Amino acid sequence: MDADEALARLRGLGFSDEDAATLFLHFDDAEQRGKLGHGYSRIEWLETQQDVAVDPTARPLLAAEYPGFEHWDGNGALGYLTLAAICDRLIEKPPWPSRVIVARDTFPTGMLGHYVRLLATEADLVALLTATSPARLAHPDGGEPLVGTTPLAIGIPNPEGEPIVVDVSMGKSTYGEVLAGLAAPEDLVPFGGDQAHKAFALALGLQLAVDACVVDGYGALLVVIAPETSTVPDLRERAAGLRLPGDS
Amino acid sequence: MDADEALARLRGLGFSDEDAATLFLHFDDAEQRGKLGHGYSRIEWLETQQDVAVDPTARPLLAAEYPGFEHWDGNGALGYLTLAAICDRLIEKPPWPSRVIVARDTFPTGMLGHYVRLLATEADLVALLTATSPARLAHPDGGEPLVGTTPLAIGIPNPEGEPIVVDVSMGKSTYGEVLAGLAAPEDLVPFGGDQAHKAFALALGLQLAVDACVVDGYGALLVVIAPETSTVPDLRERAAGLRLPGDS
Repeated sequence: MDADEALARLRGLGFSDEDAATLFLHFDDAEQRGKLGHGYSRIEWLETQQDVAVDPTARPLLAAEYPGFEHWDGNGALGYLTLAAICDRLIEKPPWPSRVIVARDTFPTGMLGHYVRLLATEADLVALLTATSPARLAHPDGGEPLVGTTPLAIGIPNPEGEPIVVDVSMGKSTYGEVLAGLAAPEDLVPFGGDQAHKAFALALGLQLAVDACVVDGYGALLVVIAPETSTVPDLRERAAGLRLPGDS
Repeated sequence: MDADEALARLRGLGFSDEDAATLFLHFDDAEQRGKLGHGYSRIEWLETQQDVAVDPTARPLLAAEYPGFEHWDGNGALGYLTLAAICDRLIEKPPWPSRVIVARDTFPTGMLGHYVRLLATEADLVALLTATSPARLAHPDGGEPLVGTTPLAIGIPNPEGEPIVVDVSMGKSTYGEVLAGLAAPEDLVPFGGDQAHKAFALALGLQLAVDACVVDGYGALLVVIAPETSTVPDLRERAAGLRLPGDS
C-alpha cells in the first residue's frame, strides 16, 4: 500500500481530509520504524472492524480541566484522533511545570511512541503515556487473559538532537503483530521468559491506573513535565554509538 | 537482626526516634515481603556507607509548589525519609484530581512499593513512582553500565480489600540483592532474556525522565491521581485466586 492508496482508503471510510492525514501520519510513522503491526495493516483492520464502532465524524472533547489536569472524552472518535487532539493542544501551549491528562473512550491508540515523540520534539515536554486495550495476556501461572499488552511510552527531549523515545509493550508480541501475521497468537504472553511476572505486573499496574481514571471502556493516561535540564546528550555520548530507544 | 537491635543500630547512626522508626518500618516491610535486598541488610550497609554522606539530622524540604505540582529537595536527608515526608503530606491532605511530585537529592529510596502501598491504603490514591540510582545495567549490546535498575512502582487502591502494588526493578537482579548476597554481580543486567532491550528501554526512559526534572544527583518522580472508580475487586475475581502483584 502506498501513501495515495492509504489516504484514499481512509477517506473512503468517511474521514475528513485532516483526520485522514492525521491517521496516515501515524500509520506511516509506524511503517517507517518497522512497527508494522501499527502500520498500514491497521487500515485494513479498520475497514473490517466490528468491535470498534468507527464514527469518522466524531470529535474528541476536553470534558473537564483543572490546574495541572485535563480529562478528555473520545466521544466516539478513534483513539488515534483523541491522542492527536490532546497533543495538538499541548504543542500549541505547552504546560508548565506539569500536567496529568486522562482520556476516556480512547481506543485504539496505536504506537504510543508516536505521540511522546511529537511532544518531545514539538513541545519540549517529557512525556509518559500508557493506554488500555482488550485483555490478551494471562497471568504467568495460567488462567484467562487478564490484561492488555498495555504499553508504556516515554519521550525525552534532546536539545542537541534526536530525542529518546521508549515504547515498550508488555507482551512478548503485540496484538498488532499477530494481526499483521508477524507473530503467533501463542506469543501473546508477558515478555521476560522466567521473569514474565515482571512484565505482567507492569501491564496490570498500568491498566488498573488507567481503569481507575476512566470509569469504563478503554482509555489513556498521559503525564507531561517541562524539563529542567537534559542529560540526553551526555547519555548519547556515554552510549558511544549504541542504538538507543527510538533511534531509526 | 530483630526489631530492637535494628532500631538501636539506626539510633546509633544518629537518627531521631521518629526517623529511626520510619526507617525501621521500611526495612521491616521489605523483610516481611521477602525483599531482603531492601531489608535489614541496608542497616549494615548504611553503617559502612562511604558513597552516601549520611546526615541523620538533615530534613527534606518542600522547595516549590504550584497547582498540581510539588518540587522537593532531600536536602541531605536519606531518600527513604524524603519519600516518607512526601507521603505523609499527601496522606494528611490527599490532592484532587492529581499531583506530580519531583524530588531531588533523594537517595537511596529502597523498596518503592512501600510508598505506593501507603498512598493506596492511607490516602486512596493511585500512585506511580520511580527513582534513580547508580548505573548498574549496560545496554544489551554491551558497553559500560548506563542506567540504574530504575524500578517502577504502581499502587492501586481497592475499596474492598487489599490494594494492587506493583514494584518492578528493570534489573534481572537488584543491587540490593547483590549486596545481600542473594544474587551474583553478573545478574545486574536488564531482565527479559532475549527481550532485555525492553527492560533496558524502560530503565533508560524512567531514569531520563527523573534526570530531566532534578538537574543533578539522584531523584524520584511520583504521580498521584484520585481515582474515579476501582476495577480491582473485579480483577481479583477474574484472577480467581492467582497471586497478584503486592499480595503477601
